Parts: sequence; structure tokens; C-alpha cells
Amino acid sequence: MQVAKQEILNLEQRYRANLINSITGFKSLSLICTINSENVSNVAVFTQVLHVGAHPPLIGVLFRPVMEGMDTMKNIMERDFFTLNHVPASLALEAHWTSAKWKISEFEGVGLEEEYIAPFPVPFVKGAPIQMGLKFVEKHLIAANQTTFLVGSIEYLSVPDAAIEPDGFIDLAKTGSLAGVGLDGYYKGEKLHRFSYAKPGIKPEII
Amino acid sequence: MQVAKQEILNLEQRYRANLINSITGFKSLSLICTINSENVSNVAVFTQVLHVGAHPPLIGVLFRPVMEGMDTMKNIMERDFFTLNHVPASLALEAHWTSAKWKISEFEGVGLEEEYIAPFPVPFVKGAPIQMGLKFVEKHLIAANQTTFLVGSIEYLSVPDAAIEPDGFIDLAKTGSLAGVGLDGYYKGEKLHRFSYAKPGIKPEII
Repeated sequence: MQVAKQEILNLEQRYRANLINSITGFKSLSLICTINSENVSNVAVFTQVLHVGAHPPLIGVLFRPVMEGMDTMKNIMERDFFTLNHVPASLALEAHWTSAKWKISEFEGVGLEEEYIAPFPVPFVKGAPIQMGLKFVEKHLIAANQTTFLVGSIEYLSVPDAAIEPDGFIDLAKTGSLAGVGLDGYYKGEKLHRFSYAKPGIKPEII
Repeated sequence: MQVAKQEILNLEQRYRANLINSITGFKSLSLICTINSENVSNVAVFTQVLHVGAHPPLIGVLFRPVMEGMDTMKNIMERDFFTLNHVPASLALEAHWTSAKWKISEFEGVGLEEEYIAPFPVPFVKGAPIQMGLKFVEKHLIAANQTTFLVGSIEYLSVPDAAIEPDGFIDLAKTGSLAGVGLDGYYKGEKLHRFSYAKPGIKPEII
């Protein structure tokens, strides 16, 4: 398929949504947990998570335009804190199911378990191989489509030691973290290799 | 490893960079091509690419603070257009090598080939399984670390028909697109499954 802008806009709506959601490539797959001012917890699956910086450690999340029943960003603004949790294959169904319009807590609805790690005020997802606790830093409204790019700082992190290489690299095949594709695709990652630091004129080596 | 903020800040700089760059999960892997006002082309590997919206089709890219020799964002501001190209395993070394501080064109330095697809004014990467032509829409400076979140609209796209499922979903295992982890990790994706549209009280099914 080779198409220009007008043909893309003319595609059937659901077809276009699947296509354009898949076309950016593999996405990280995270469960974001929040609590509101009345301590009601919320958990939702996200694929729009981005590394923003290592020092200070910052992560960005893109939020869809706010609608009734979408509580994650509202809760972050109320409480300042949220958690990001990787999704292993054993929790993929539960993660996907959080995207339904639940009237009850998604934790209860889909059968995920909250895990509190003191002193962090928001629950993590029990069984998530990588867990991060974050604090709100700033947000930006994207004028073109009313989405919001929100930046948080990493205040706590938990990673299995066995997956950390001597120089700090985390092998996500060893953590069993899944990747997302499109709106509903779940993928496993297989490590090919790492390359050495790139310099002009010297071919990078597999490390 | 279970660490809080101050311990993260105390980690050795390179170790922390590897750890924090890996911890957000799998990343899309793209080669971004641009040209400057004198028609000199540039190609650089990026892992900070995000789906922003399907209608209109929008993509976001996070840029590091601008420094001498980093021409991609400067070129986009000069010419308004850029291209995003997926990286197959056969071009992983070349993609990684673009991150070196080349004094000559990266295309020439690493041996990637430009492909012009009229009427798009910027080259694509020949051999990339998925190619997108984009136009600048807006950008936002992230105050916390001087990175820039730039949004572009998809003006052209090319995807192999064999990888597109009947409902528009692109199977990135079939395109052979790689995922990135950290600063230098290259991964292959293996499709586990897709799940049906999630509704409360009805377990999603594998589709």
C-alpha cells in the first residue's frame, strides 16, 4: 500500500485507526496506576510512553483528549503521583481488559492485584517485572488534536537484577516485558544484539 | 534492584544512562531523513517516536537538546518535511552507525541509499519496509530538560501489502521492523496474539 494524505483520510475509520496506530512501530506496553482524592485506585493500559531524559530521569506519556470515564490524567493532577508497570505475557489479557469502560475499579474488574510499596502513595501492579513510581513534572496540550504530553520524574524503580547487564542495560527479553503494536497486538521481544558506541569511519561491533 | 530517587541520581553516569534508557520498555526504531536549505541530506536513528493520533494522522518525535552537529530538527524547521523509515535487521548496523558524529553525509558514511519518491521533497531510506513522509505541525519545549516534542502529520505512507491484516492492522513481525531497547539494543518482535475489543464483564478473546 502506497498512499498520500487524501487517500489516508478517505480510508474507512476503523481500518485507518488500526493502520496508523501500527505504523509507528513497536511500542512499550505499560499499566499506569493512579488514585483519586478519595483513594479510589485506577489502572489502565498505555502504549504511548517515551523516554524523555536520564538525568534527571524523566518519562513522557501521551494522553488522549479527556473524556468522561478516563480518569488517569485527572487522578495524576489530583494526587501528583502515578506508577508505570511493565506487562508480562501472563498479564496481557488483564492489561488489555483494563481498556474496557468499567464502572467498578479495573483492578477488581479484570483481576489485577494492587501492590503498595511504602512510602510511595500509589499502588503498583503485583507481578509486573518492572515497576516505576513517578511524580508529575509538566504537561503540554497538543493543539492539533487536543492530546496531552505529560512528563513525570522517576522517584522509584524496581528491576529484576538478573535482567540488568554489567553496564546498566536492561535486557527486556529477560524481564519478559511485552511490546504493543496498534490497538490490540501483543508481541514478545527477541534480543538480536547490542552495538558498540558509534564513531565515524569505524564499523560498530556487536557487543 | 529497588532504588529511590536519590540513589538513582547517585548511580554512575553511563550506568544510569543505560538503565533509564532501557526502563521505558520496547521502543520503535526509525531512521529520520531530512534535507537542509542547500539540499544536503541527513539521516539519523531515533527511538523516541510516538503515535499521536489517527485522524488526522499525527506522529510525535522527541528531540534531545540541540547541539552542534545535530541537524535533524534544524533541517525540519528549514524545510518543513521529513521522512520516517523502519529499520529491518539487514540495516541495523547502518542505522546504529548514523549516530556517530559524521562530518560527511551519514548516507555516504554508513552506506545507506537515498530513495526519492515524487513528489515528496525529502529522501526515504531505500530498503526500509515501512516509509512515511511527514510535514511539521507544531513543537513544544520540555522545560524540565530542554528536549523538544515535535509533531508531524503523515502526508505519505508505504507499507508492504502482505503485512496488512484485513482490518488495517500491520503485523510488524512480517515487515521485519526491529524494536530498540536502551541506547544500543536491537530486538526482533514475535507476535503472540491480538485481543478483541475490550468490554466490561466479557473476557477479551484472542483474535
